[in-house]
Amino acid sequence: MSKNFQIAELLDYYGMLLTDKQRETVEFYYNDDLSLGEIAENTGISRQGVRDSIKRSELILFEAEEKLGLLKKTKDLQNGLDTIRRNIDIIDGLNMRRYRSNDINESIKVILNELEKLKEL
Amino acid sequence: MSKNFQIAELLDYYGMLLTDKQRETVEFYYNDDLSLGEIAENTGISRQGVRDSIKRSELILFEAEEKLGLLKKTKDLQNGLDTIRRNIDIIDGLNMRRYRSNDINESIKVILNELEKLKEL
Repeated sequence: MSKNFQIAELLDYYGMLLTDKQRETVEFYYNDDLSLGEIAENTGISRQGVRDSIKRSELILFEAEEKLGLLKKTKDLQNGLDTIRRNIDIIDGLNMRRYRSNDINESIKVILNELEKLKEL
Repeated sequence: MSKNFQIAELLDYYGMLLTDKQRETVEFYYNDDLSLGEIAENTGISRQGVRDSIKRSELILFEAEEKLGLLKKTKDLQNGLDTIRRNIDIIDGLNMRRYRSNDINESIKVILNELEKLKEL
């Protein structure tokens, strides 16, 4: 069974869609890097049961991303916010060096504050 | 059975998490405003079966929002983008009237373009 490291990322977004048991096994495997045998020992499920649970969980996570696309949307959002941020910094630099407008400065502050909040979404 | 009009909105976000049959009944009910009896006729399911399917679908949609919070996040995003947009317009107005900086103008154009793209997320 080969590890797919996108799973760890998908877990952040869609882990809540798994049952507690599914999430536990898949987190042991992907976040804590335990072997199937170690997870079997920790959870009291058979090694084959652990393998099946992880495979099932992976399927749920991949399907959730295919249906909802949260991972892709979040990356698009972060890229867009970065581009806005870079251009706000350009405007801020020009204003500080040349125009020294308090009104522009005020609006820049509000925008920077919003950008920080949106980064947490 | 009372209608909850947040359902129509949740359907836009999480409709893909329902089975085709569930989505069909709940869309007939909330988007097309058909009665339970009319949906039963259209789908060949009993009236009680239609009611159960809608109740089950509503539960899935509410749980998805509780777990993933996409509706709330999207509203927060749109509010944040609106605030940024308003402040960009202020900077744009000041620049046009007073400073006439091409560099600021260029950065504003890039930001407005990004804001348009992010509104579609």
